[in-house]
Amino acid sequence: MATAKVDVYGMLEKIKKHKPVIHHLTNWVTINDCANVVKVLGASPVMAHAPEEVEEMAGLASALVLNIGTLTVDFVDSMKKAALSANKKGIPVILDVCGAGATDLRDHKCFELLDAVHIAIIKGNASEIARIGGAAAKTKGVDSGSVPADLRKLAAGLAQKYGCTVVTTGKEDIVTDGKRNYTVKNGHPMMANIVGTGCMAASVIGTFAAVEPDYPNASVAGLVCFEIAAECAAQKSKGPGAFKERLLDALYNLKKKTISKRQKVET
Amino acid sequence: MATAKVDVYGMLEKIKKHKPVIHHLTNWVTINDCANVVKVLGASPVMAHAPEEVEEMAGLASALVLNIGTLTVDFVDSMKKAALSANKKGIPVILDVCGAGATDLRDHKCFELLDAVHIAIIKGNASEIARIGGAAAKTKGVDSGSVPADLRKLAAGLAQKYGCTVVTTGKEDIVTDGKRNYTVKNGHPMMANIVGTGCMAASVIGTFAAVEPDYPNASVAGLVCFEIAAECAAQKSKGPGAFKERLLDALYNLKKKTISKRQKVET
Amino acid sequence: MATAKVDVYGMLEKIKKHKPVIHHLTNWVTINDCANVVKVLGASPVMAHAPEEVEEMAGLASALVLNIGTLTVDFVDSMKKAALSANKKGIPVILDVCGAGATDLRDHKCFELLDAVHIAIIKGNASEIARIGGAAAKTKGVDSGSVPADLRKLAAGLAQKYGCTVVTTGKEDIVTDGKRNYTVKNGHPMMANIVGTGCMAASVIGTFAAVEPDYPNASVAGLVCFEIAAECAAQKSKGPGAFKERLLDALYNLKKKTISKRQKVET
Repeated sequence: MATAKVDVYGMLEKIKKHKPVIHHLTNWVTINDCANVVKVLGASPVMAHAPEEVEEMAGLASALVLNIGTLTVDFVDSMKKAALSANKKGIPVILDVCGAGATDLRDHKCFELLDAVHIAIIKGNASEIARIGGAAAKTKGVDSGSVPADLRKLAAGLAQKYGCTVVTTGKEDIVTDGKRNYTVKNGHPMMANIVGTGCMAASVIGTFAAVEPDYPNASVAGLVCFEIAAECAAQKSKGPGAFKERLLDALYNLKKKTISKRQKVET
Repeated sequence: MATAKVDVYGMLEKIKKHKPVIHHLTNWVTINDCANVVKVLGASPVMAHAPEEVEEMAGLASALVLNIGTLTVDFVDSMKKAALSANKKGIPVILDVCGAGATDLRDHKCFELLDAVHIAIIKGNASEIARIGGAAAKTKGVDSGSVPADLRKLAAGLAQKYGCTVVTTGKEDIVTDGKRNYTVKNGHPMMANIVGTGCMAASVIGTFAAVEPDYPNASVAGLVCFEIAAECAAQKSKGPGAFKERLLDALYNLKKKTISKRQKVET
Repeated sequence: MATAKVDVYGMLEKIKKHKPVIHHLTNWVTINDCANVVKVLGASPVMAHAPEEVEEMAGLASALVLNIGTLTVDFVDSMKKAALSANKKGIPVILDVCGAGATDLRDHKCFELLDAVHIAIIKGNASEIARIGGAAAKTKGVDSGSVPADLRKLAAGLAQKYGCTVVTTGKEDIVTDGKRNYTVKNGHPMMANIVGTGCMAASVIGTFAAVEPDYPNASVAGLVCFEIAAECAAQKSKGPGAFKERLLDALYNLKKKTISKRQKVET
């Protein structure tokens, strides 16, 4: 594998300059974390799910982030409305397939969304992506189950099938659009000791996709920033509570030289 | 402008003595922040929205805080029920017009609430208040858009129209009942780097209004406490994560002399 | 009273080894706190409430935690479905009777759940348990009202009536199955200055019950761990914000010798 060059800091500067509105329909567990992670990047998060307003809200956003972590049937209907509005406007829709592989409802609603609207970026952990990619993978609630050997192939196939970018998070993150493939090796084990790092990663990726039309690059850049911030935050943290607080601080204070020094992206 | 005298600390002591129950129907993004900010003041927050119980819950509260940040049609119906019960009992109802100016639904539901029940205090950012005050202001999701030149006039007119107090938050906060006008110049730019400072301000104001029947004074006192706490918290904070933690600590530990030394209220 | 021996650390090791999935249907105020407290113990929290998936999700869990803090009628229907599935699978169901004694809806829904499904552990504060135990106790929103003199008798009677364990939290926690009685004297006053310590205690108890079939012992062990962590966290905390962060750190870092040194359980 060769080291890949992605202008991560350039995108970060664009976010701070344009302050894009990032519309979310997300889960009730980590909704505050998702909003804060977007805010500390310099963008403007808005969470809105009423069917009467989602189209209008998506219309003033620069990206739409969908997360099925605490889905209901009505909520997914609102997601569809918002996503159709986003497709019409030409802004990227990011789908976090949270808990796919845990229940039939989650699998079916992911496929329903993927068939009804255009998703620019699908994001999930190994068993979630494997399941949506067609494998019989099982997810332990929202934590990844066993990782299939052919995960990279499943992810690439999923990207090709829906003409989108697929992000698989884990010890190593895989980003693929079915042609180009990246591996992001940043991050820290402490990320697994709090809830919401996966959801926050999707919100960060959505924020980068709002300013960068090359979605594989935007996904890589978002993951690099978020996971380098996690590395910095973990250094001085006694535990998950301190880590979560410092994660926001580190992301807010991320310097160009820290990124270029720590960035670990392979292609 | 002259410096205004408001007995901020006296109200804070009343809150700690009477521990008023503050009933919320608020948004799902910052609901935990709103509950905690009320708790650290020494009051007792309760969040309840089921139509079958909101009247009874409002009946045991000393103030009702409504926030439309993640509104739905049913949720606003519950707000109306709760507010009618609060009106009947004679406790103040605070309405945070979160996101007014972003979508038609938010505008219409604010007007619907203002026409159906008596709101004691309307709180919003510049473009939210301008929109509810009748201007064509646009809100960027839940962040303020451009601020109209005649904001003070719009706020005063809104207060007169509904016979209430109007609080407009920003770099300088404007508090008006249409006759008396206050400007609160406390606060810190770091407040803009986390979500929920606006929602928390409304909950703090509601808590002060629970013990102080002069609502312009209660609003000023609440803003002063919250924003002085923010000033103290920002001093030692490396970023938004540390700031958010220290904000609760500073509010909890707020001293009489810190308030009198830092209080910046003009009339 | 004699000092009771409960193998608290042995259970904690089982949790870290087996990483049980803990399914929650809980309130929207402290849902993130509940998920994080389960996560830092080493278990795997999942929050899911859609009627179409709750049975399947409960089916892959090792314990089910129900909390009526922001209940609606539909939400309680989903709780029933999930609990029936949990009963069928033979995993423990924990019910936090949050706000019982505040409104009729909360009382009725608690009784409805207790009659429709088997609850392994009922948890509440003094006035909540007193009310469900049949007294005319009133709860101040979600904070305990006056504590009846015969609280221990009411709790024991409640345990006998439903053949379950009853946990009453407060300055001293009472754990009873109607025959065996324990008093846990750990904890710290700072716990009362943030929201969610009660909800988190229920989630911790649920996590211990997932690995320990003796539910009174599991409840005692969970309370001991959570409250010793609170004692450690409070030592260096300037206020509630710092305390909440350190509470997760202390729980994550809890050592065997800290538990044996601080554990205060009487029988």
